[in-house]
Amino acid sequence: MKQINPADAFSKYQPKNITFVISVDKQGKPNGMIAAWHTILSKEPPMMGVAVYKVQNTHKLIEQSKEFVLAIPSGRLLKAITIFGEYHGDKIDKFKMSKVKTKKAHHIKSPLLADATINFECKVVKQISTGDHTFFIGKVVAAYFNDNQKIILSSGRDKNGKRTFCKL
Amino acid sequence: MKQINPADAFSKYQPKNITFVISVDKQGKPNGMIAAWHTILSKEPPMMGVAVYKVQNTHKLIEQSKEFVLAIPSGRLLKAITIFGEYHGDKIDKFKMSKVKTKKAHHIKSPLLADATINFECKVVKQISTGDHTFFIGKVVAAYFNDNQKIILSSGRDKNGKRTFCKL
Repeated sequence: MKQINPADAFSKYQPKNITFVISVDKQGKPNGMIAAWHTILSKEPPMMGVAVYKVQNTHKLIEQSKEFVLAIPSGRLLKAITIFGEYHGDKIDKFKMSKVKTKKAHHIKSPLLADATINFECKVVKQISTGDHTFFIGKVVAAYFNDNQKIILSSGRDKNGKRTFCKL
Repeated sequence: MKQINPADAFSKYQPKNITFVISVDKQGKPNGMIAAWHTILSKEPPMMGVAVYKVQNTHKLIEQSKEFVLAIPSGRLLKAITIFGEYHGDKIDKFKMSKVKTKKAHHIKSPLLADATINFECKVVKQISTGDHTFFIGKVVAAYFNDNQKIILSSGRDKNGKRTFCKL
């Protein structure tokens, strides 16, 4: 067991669960990003949280709209993960580019991803500044499950910096 | 995609990363539990958070000591996971029962687990009430990596309620 820099230990923490974080702008146009730093927080009431880097477009959108969807990816979303994870939403329309299929949420404006294994609709109840990120805490107001789609996990990046995944 | 109860969706969220949460009482005696609900929160400064059920012994100990270790398990800790996850620390000494190997931390009193893939020493900087859990936010003051030990993940429970795991 070797002592290493905490930030290096974060990147060694693989395989890791990942999620799409989907939000909307004032006109209702959706944007999305990929985040690993998320967790369930409470069963009763159901709550989840996600840490978003303060300079990200998604950060601004969640602060404005006070809502987000967490969509836990299945193997059908590999291409979308790369597009949502590598491009900036203020420059391209990630939804159009990835041709990802969406569905309307019941209680919020952010769309669900039809091919995600699980979708969580969340309304922000608290936001906490945690260093270079903001931790958005949401009440889960609805959840959806695709029982024929297995969850995939991040397993890091290859030598060329390309994201790698594993399915169990 | 079928709408389901959020709490049921939480239990469908598998495979999932898990961690040991280790804390000490006022006499310095360690206790530990297994938690799935944890996340990295910030790179600069390095921060992590873990949600602990409010009635748990670990909750009281972290509130008192303002510190905890998150030890990300390798396959060597399967037996310890079952013992730490299923028994109560106020009744038995989980460390003795599991014969888990510990090491002294550098900055806090909670011990590290020698066979964990990663150990994070954390000092509490904030605690947030999130429903039936408290989310303890810690600054990561040291980290340790075992590069020959792969991380294992929870894959739920079998028909008999026994914890199941997967390694990648």
